[in-house]
Amino acid sequence: MVQNRLETKKIRRAGALTVAAIGLSALLAGCGSDSGPGVDGDTAAGVDISRAATGDVTAHGGARRLTEDQTQAIADSIQQTGAKNVILVIGDGTANQELTLARDYQWGAGGQIPGIDQLPLTGDYTTYSINKDTRKPDYTTDSAASGTGWATGTKTYNGAVGVDVNGKPQRSILEIARANGLRTGDVTTTELQDATPAVQVAHVTQRKCYGPKETAEKCPENALENGGAGSITEQLLAARPDVTFGGGWATFAQTATAGEYRGQTLEAQAKSRGYQIVRSADEMNALDEANQDKPVLGVFADGNLPRIWDKATAVPGGVKQPAVKCADNPAFTAATPKLGDMTRKAIDLLDNDKGFFLQVESGSVDKANHDADPCGQIGETVQLSDAVTAALDFAKKQKDTLVIVTGDHAHTSQIVEPDPELPMPGLTKLLIGRDGDPIAVNYGTSLVPGEEQHTGGQVRIAAYGPGAANVVGLTDQTDPFFYITDQLGLDREKK
Amino acid sequence: MVQNRLETKKIRRAGALTVAAIGLSALLAGCGSDSGPGVDGDTAAGVDISRAATGDVTAHGGARRLTEDQTQAIADSIQQTGAKNVILVIGDGTANQELTLARDYQWGAGGQIPGIDQLPLTGDYTTYSINKDTRKPDYTTDSAASGTGWATGTKTYNGAVGVDVNGKPQRSILEIARANGLRTGDVTTTELQDATPAVQVAHVTQRKCYGPKETAEKCPENALENGGAGSITEQLLAARPDVTFGGGWATFAQTATAGEYRGQTLEAQAKSRGYQIVRSADEMNALDEANQDKPVLGVFADGNLPRIWDKATAVPGGVKQPAVKCADNPAFTAATPKLGDMTRKAIDLLDNDKGFFLQVESGSVDKANHDADPCGQIGETVQLSDAVTAALDFAKKQKDTLVIVTGDHAHTSQIVEPDPELPMPGLTKLLIGRDGDPIAVNYGTSLVPGEEQHTGGQVRIAAYGPGAANVVGLTDQTDPFFYITDQLGLDREKK
Repeated sequence: MVQNRLETKKIRRAGALTVAAIGLSALLAGCGSDSGPGVDGDTAAGVDISRAATGDVTAHGGARRLTEDQTQAIADSIQQTGAKNVILVIGDGTANQELTLARDYQWGAGGQIPGIDQLPLTGDYTTYSINKDTRKPDYTTDSAASGTGWATGTKTYNGAVGVDVNGKPQRSILEIARANGLRTGDVTTTELQDATPAVQVAHVTQRKCYGPKETAEKCPENALENGGAGSITEQLLAARPDVTFGGGWATFAQTATAGEYRGQTLEAQAKSRGYQIVRSADEMNALDEANQDKPVLGVFADGNLPRIWDKATAVPGGVKQPAVKCADNPAFTAATPKLGDMTRKAIDLLDNDKGFFLQVESGSVDKANHDADPCGQIGETVQLSDAVTAALDFAKKQKDTLVIVTGDHAHTSQIVEPDPELPMPGLTKLLIGRDGDPIAVNYGTSLVPGEEQHTGGQVRIAAYGPGAANVVGLTDQTDPFFYITDQLGLDREKK
Repeated sequence: MVQNRLETKKIRRAGALTVAAIGLSALLAGCGSDSGPGVDGDTAAGVDISRAATGDVTAHGGARRLTEDQTQAIADSIQQTGAKNVILVIGDGTANQELTLARDYQWGAGGQIPGIDQLPLTGDYTTYSINKDTRKPDYTTDSAASGTGWATGTKTYNGAVGVDVNGKPQRSILEIARANGLRTGDVTTTELQDATPAVQVAHVTQRKCYGPKETAEKCPENALENGGAGSITEQLLAARPDVTFGGGWATFAQTATAGEYRGQTLEAQAKSRGYQIVRSADEMNALDEANQDKPVLGVFADGNLPRIWDKATAVPGGVKQPAVKCADNPAFTAATPKLGDMTRKAIDLLDNDKGFFLQVESGSVDKANHDADPCGQIGETVQLSDAVTAALDFAKKQKDTLVIVTGDHAHTSQIVEPDPELPMPGLTKLLIGRDGDPIAVNYGTSLVPGEEQHTGGQVRIAAYGPGAANVVGLTDQTDPFFYITDQLGLDREKK
């Protein structure tokens, strides 16, 4: 064996690790310093360890993403525990096939998804939910049960928002963070009442209970008139995050049927409660504060926010049709903020001495996947990438910030061979992306766009910052509730 | 914020890290010690950090896999670089859906796959291959191109074994390791001539060139009679790994058409070359040495080794049929060694002062997936788990051993809702596994068992031991060639 070259590397690396550890001890003496815990200033950034392909991908070594041994860089990326801020970014229905499809199309197979592919520490988590009747695992979760898992640490049945299998409310990270004096934010591209944003602020037995009307019908035990905490929208207003951005304005026209705001619309209630309401990107950009006196409610669409890219629905025999390029969605105008901009604004508004917890969701990766619409799906994954970049940009400056990025469940889309001779039973579509050759996408769980199904595979979770090592290996979807509240040093019982 | 509990943890952890780093410096003074590099004796094992669900999965916190912050444990699992031995374990066509399906069925949704789920460091890699005509990325690789990627560091076209897009041979890790004086092994449940085992020992332009007969037809430029290096089997015999275990005996009846062994069968050639030939588990178990004087050739079936579990093929409308349990395959008898036993025997035979490189493949996870056979697929994933356990058991004792576990490409199987009302266009099957409720599996890329397709998603890669941190984050399938040969300290040019 020729060890010489490697031995030299060893010494350099081990030296760096010793320095890093001494740096840690020194740091401990002054624990709580505002610059935050971190093993080693510059290298601890731990970002950009793996890169895009380094050369001609047809040449020996041209496709590699590592240019040198990354042992030290990964060790450096494991920072001290204890975070001041946590930003949790969710790609709804965004697992390995969805990430790869977006990379292949937008950045090329050898390219790098900005933000997402730069996160230094990576793992997978199990996402199963619970069958309400049998109390046994349900192997394919929905967004309500999965979100309840990380938001509250409790597995539940599909459709449940913030309640356990018995319908009992479980406190969320956002609620606990607020009770502990942190600022909080909840940002999404979907309706604010949709499952993923709702799990942080509401507790209802059925996810469709958006307003008083649906709540009376679908989860009467949660209705205000029956002594419950009210609909998702009413509970959102009561939960009072400092920043809430998304869609779902239609429900705010409903009228409360009981309680202090009885007879008022939910819009009027929001104003009565002191919310600053913004309805466009310009109004959002003009905001300069968000706190418990003046919380912000940004609602930018009646329903879900429009997707940034236009639909290109897969069809039976789609691999026999010409490949297409994705196009901008004309319904997405400058009046609607993009997810990256919402994330940047939310971070600006939330940043404060006591720290913050922010959840951000790119929700329509899932919805486009249900629709067998690869362009919609990729566009919303591009939005996800922008949001992660916004979070990482902040965390690189404020090193006491933990950024976690994951999907809530796997989904139906699969990258397959673009071979017209292969008879595919589902819906397929050919796209022409960055590299120039056709990319074939298969939706094989339904023949009806809109009815494609979630799938049950474990999902990638990645992180940067103090405590990020908790995502490594195999964990469960309920683990983040515990390590996020632990990293933030929250008293989970504090009211 | 209530930080007290966390602060206490911080001090303990940081202290441990300082000790670990000092340990590293001390180790460097005596570099090359036989006990191998490792940050910290006991905790550096880094195995069993994440666990099975810790309680009643319907209760708050009952499904979590982490019992405490794992930052220090992950830091400890990052060991010094430089390995004496490398064991690379491949699950063919084994990505997140396949791993989760096997866990759900065999160990329960909250359970742990032995070996695989215990690997402390995890990431994903991109698997795209190259279109031979356009020289652009092919988004869905086959096993030949993917194996060539990690074995040689060169991306190539689907079907190519150990050659680049121009058909030019690329040296493999196994060949380089042997040239550097290490022992080498190549173990599989498939035919020895199948793509994954072949990429370490052969260089042919078409993967079907098993023997002289196919080579004359399908890749004549590789035929001995045309001045080539011969068929895959002939090149395997010339490559002379110390240990070769698998199937594919049928090809050994073919006769060489040129060269030194012209007119002899490949079986006779193996004997002439000094190979010890074993044909059963008993004969394998009786082996007590394997080296360049007496290399071992274990061939336990005419074709692929039988799968350990019997077929249960998915069918149209399978979600409407009763759920079944998987059964043992009666064709799998005690005469055939299991993959875990082959792995243990190979390690026993290869372990030596200079170190070894061993590749192990559970090859029929892929083949059962093509067949839309979830039971076959799960059984072979159980075999994969056994092989990883065997590798980890050795590595925990011989800490200078790097174990890497991955799949070569994603595949078709998806876990879906067991709902008979959902019209699924592909082939489906209901299974009753460990938890007791039905698990639904969908094969949505063909209606013909045997013709289900690979898919293009990035694939999980996990590792334990020195250099294991190189799998973390997003890497490419060609990266392992470089970091494995680097960790082993090999001169890649040595002949």
